[in-house]
Amino acid sequence: MIHVTVWNEYRHELSDEQVRQVYPNGIHEQLKFFLQEDFTVKTATLDEHEHGLSEDVLNETDVLIWWGHIAHSEVQDSIVDRVHKRVLEGMGLIVLHSAHMSKIFMKLMGTSCDLKWREANEKCRIWNVNPSHPIVEGIGEYIELEQEEMYGEHFDIPAPDELIFINWYQGGEVFRGGCTYRRGNGKIFYFQPGHETYPSYYHPKVQHVIKNAIKWCSPTENTYPTYGNAQPLEKLEEEKL
Amino acid sequence: MIHVTVWNEYRHELSDEQVRQVYPNGIHEQLKFFLQEDFTVKTATLDEHEHGLSEDVLNETDVLIWWGHIAHSEVQDSIVDRVHKRVLEGMGLIVLHSAHMSKIFMKLMGTSCDLKWREANEKCRIWNVNPSHPIVEGIGEYIELEQEEMYGEHFDIPAPDELIFINWYQGGEVFRGGCTYRRGNGKIFYFQPGHETYPSYYHPKVQHVIKNAIKWCSPTENTYPTYGNAQPLEKLEEEKL
Amino acid sequence: MIHVTVWNEYRHELSDEQVRQVYPNGIHEQLKFFLQEDFTVKTATLDEHEHGLSEDVLNETDVLIWWGHIAHSEVQDSIVDRVHKRVLEGMGLIVLHSAHMSKIFMKLMGTSCDLKWREANEKCRIWNVNPSHPIVEGIGEYIELEQEEMYGEHFDIPAPDELIFINWYQGGEVFRGGCTYRRGNGKIFYFQPGHETYPSYYHPKVQHVIKNAIKWCSPTENTYPTYGNAQPLEKLEEEKL
Amino acid sequence: MIHVTVWNEYRHELSDEQVRQVYPNGIHEQLKFFLQEDFTVKTATLDEHEHGLSEDVLNETDVLIWWGHIAHSEVQDSIVDRVHKRVLEGMGLIVLHSAHMSKIFMKLMGTSCDLKWREANEKCRIWNVNPSHPIVEGIGEYIELEQEEMYGEHFDIPAPDELIFINWYQGGEVFRGGCTYRRGNGKIFYFQPGHETYPSYYHPKVQHVIKNAIKWCSPTENTYPTYGNAQPLEKLEEEKL
Repeated sequence: MIHVTVWNEYRHELSDEQVRQVYPNGIHEQLKFFLQEDFTVKTATLDEHEHGLSEDVLNETDVLIWWGHIAHSEVQDSIVDRVHKRVLEGMGLIVLHSAHMSKIFMKLMGTSCDLKWREANEKCRIWNVNPSHPIVEGIGEYIELEQEEMYGEHFDIPAPDELIFINWYQGGEVFRGGCTYRRGNGKIFYFQPGHETYPSYYHPKVQHVIKNAIKWCSPTENTYPTYGNAQPLEKLEEEKL
Repeated sequence: MIHVTVWNEYRHELSDEQVRQVYPNGIHEQLKFFLQEDFTVKTATLDEHEHGLSEDVLNETDVLIWWGHIAHSEVQDSIVDRVHKRVLEGMGLIVLHSAHMSKIFMKLMGTSCDLKWREANEKCRIWNVNPSHPIVEGIGEYIELEQEEMYGEHFDIPAPDELIFINWYQGGEVFRGGCTYRRGNGKIFYFQPGHETYPSYYHPKVQHVIKNAIKWCSPTENTYPTYGNAQPLEKLEEEKL
Repeated sequence: MIHVTVWNEYRHELSDEQVRQVYPNGIHEQLKFFLQEDFTVKTATLDEHEHGLSEDVLNETDVLIWWGHIAHSEVQDSIVDRVHKRVLEGMGLIVLHSAHMSKIFMKLMGTSCDLKWREANEKCRIWNVNPSHPIVEGIGEYIELEQEEMYGEHFDIPAPDELIFINWYQGGEVFRGGCTYRRGNGKIFYFQPGHETYPSYYHPKVQHVIKNAIKWCSPTENTYPTYGNAQPLEKLEEEKL
Repeated sequence: MIHVTVWNEYRHELSDEQVRQVYPNGIHEQLKFFLQEDFTVKTATLDEHEHGLSEDVLNETDVLIWWGHIAHSEVQDSIVDRVHKRVLEGMGLIVLHSAHMSKIFMKLMGTSCDLKWREANEKCRIWNVNPSHPIVEGIGEYIELEQEEMYGEHFDIPAPDELIFINWYQGGEVFRGGCTYRRGNGKIFYFQPGHETYPSYYHPKVQHVIKNAIKWCSPTENTYPTYGNAQPLEKLEEEKL
């Protein structure tokens, strides 16, 4: 059984009535709700001790899901470094929506991760452009969300290892809304849906994608490579040694 | 005329007689020596004020070359951030040899950038695996170095946007020794040769590759994209605005 | 001076009054018209001897531009093979619009190259998602075409080496509308605009992209690699030879 | 249970005593021998009716393994087209060793697929450069083969979607010896080991890689995309339709 930890900033839900109506127990509890059908799920939030991400929690996590927005800067650098180390060791990471500017995603990408955005209740259609990928298994040609925040190009990310989804917005923009990356031994999936005032995490196809992505980025039983000073594997001439 | 700044840590050459014999005026001066045939070249070193990388110097630099080894940790984070910002704005960056673990390269890659290594005076053959790329123009099938430090896989980098060279070593290892990346508006080239005790930067083909790479990663006249809140380009229904 | 050959099927223009009004001398002549400002340009068409693509013509061509639509099947396989061989040797190839299903593009891609399409006079916005690439130099954030044929995902192509443009359509689709590939020593650029009833090749930015692409995919002075039986470069033990 | 069909040219084994000693029942039977522990395995060979690849056989095949060498030209084009169609529909394909110049691989790649080669009984070390990939699960840092045919760069293939292995040869060459591609709905893995006079398919790690690759390229339950004329998903202005 894959062990998933859902991390949520959990601020909007406490301070904003509109958000609380959509996610009364927090975005993390809604994510946990549908994920626990298939996985062993814990949650962790910003205001817990060590943001709920102790060494022990991370060591027992196969896949970490990250949602954050208004409090990226409050995440301690030491915890970001801890998560970063675990990703390089092999923990999967799913970065949702506004977490595109989380410290951990920016640290893994090396770019500004900036983009265009607009809150206008407009329609979003998420096109599957990689039909043989396990992340889109069972999804079909596109996901249609009646309302989602517009995220538009240019999205300042490295070229994805695999481009999975391209989003269309009614207002005229496009966005690389599903992207995979490998960093160290870890696999990363960025997925666009999930503005706090819209019910995106209740949408069956959005849920399905996140479940597929958990399976895809769960660690394989690979040995972590060795680094540093290495003896030659072939005999070198004597004078060379 | 492309403006190149060659940055060198410049420590080995001052403290190690063997290195001084190879690079009596420092690695940066040897790089400058052959680059100034084709480019406008400045140098900068670690022990200068702001490591020689003031805002003005960077703003006038089209392509920055970086060589460092034993003093990566002495490079100030504020200067690393300054260089990082300039790369995202469009400045080219060529990362040489042991600079694979420089702060700036690690920050741009998001990984440990670790690898295997060995100093055994062994032969290195650098195979061109991307024959239509401008970086290998005029290079032929491979570059042979009688002696180079072994750098071996696994090299903990993101999958390169383009793999240009694969190195063969006598002792039995291989290495992705020439890799390109785009980050923000900037282009980056990592190139393996250049251990401080070997005359790699006197080799005509190594020089040729660096010159080609400068042309390749020099900024184009592209507008930097706009980010942030964006008005719709298409008319949305009234109730949406 | 780069030598460009513009190949056009040249059938719509002869049989369809609406097309003739847009391109009275054929699409090839309009492409030649603006390209000859910067390049040495010849044209060739389907109904010429050997489709205008003799060995001599191809040997003198640095970059071949291909437009075809209703008569892909009339292109002789022997000529397709000749063009294919020249691309692998290093000739650049720019594949426009409906040439996505030309024999030469399908042969180079290995896939069906199929897609969704619709002729509805709808708006197309072509977003630049690779701002540091030479093909988008001077183009800005997007190209807006008042009317273009809709081409929609899934586009059955190999993942592009570099994704340059993503198209947005009013009717709700997206499309990877600018893609680069390297095949053998040759560079290939696919570019979506150019339906025969719309004036896309009169649009300054479309023209600019094609000019940039010609420079990008023009051959470099690289030696073609050698293939076949190879002597060892290192001494093998006697019993091995 | 995944259904695997192992296709073998099966000529060397019948005519060459040295090969028969290594693979007395043919390479296909040795592949079947270790694969049937985990999969449902059939075999097919060149000299069977329709090369053993009837519509029925292919329709029941999840993953096809292909080994060929001296008789590529005897494979009928109609059967190649049938296999090609099935790959685009989603059938996995594993291309072994000298099948790099099989008609089916060349058709899927679009390039010459040529390379350097040498039979000198030399050592080959296959380095894992993608440690989080499912194809290398349990493999460790490298596979060492005491003897394998040298295959050297330049290997004229499209840049792999994912580079998995790089081979080192005693004679001084390197080779991209493990490469993945997606074409249509199908996944493809090229793997270098398997010269007919060496016991490579008895090596536990080579067997392990092929088993991992079968799991990786087995079809997912994805709907095949629709292509062709498409109605708008959004309302267009009346005059546009």
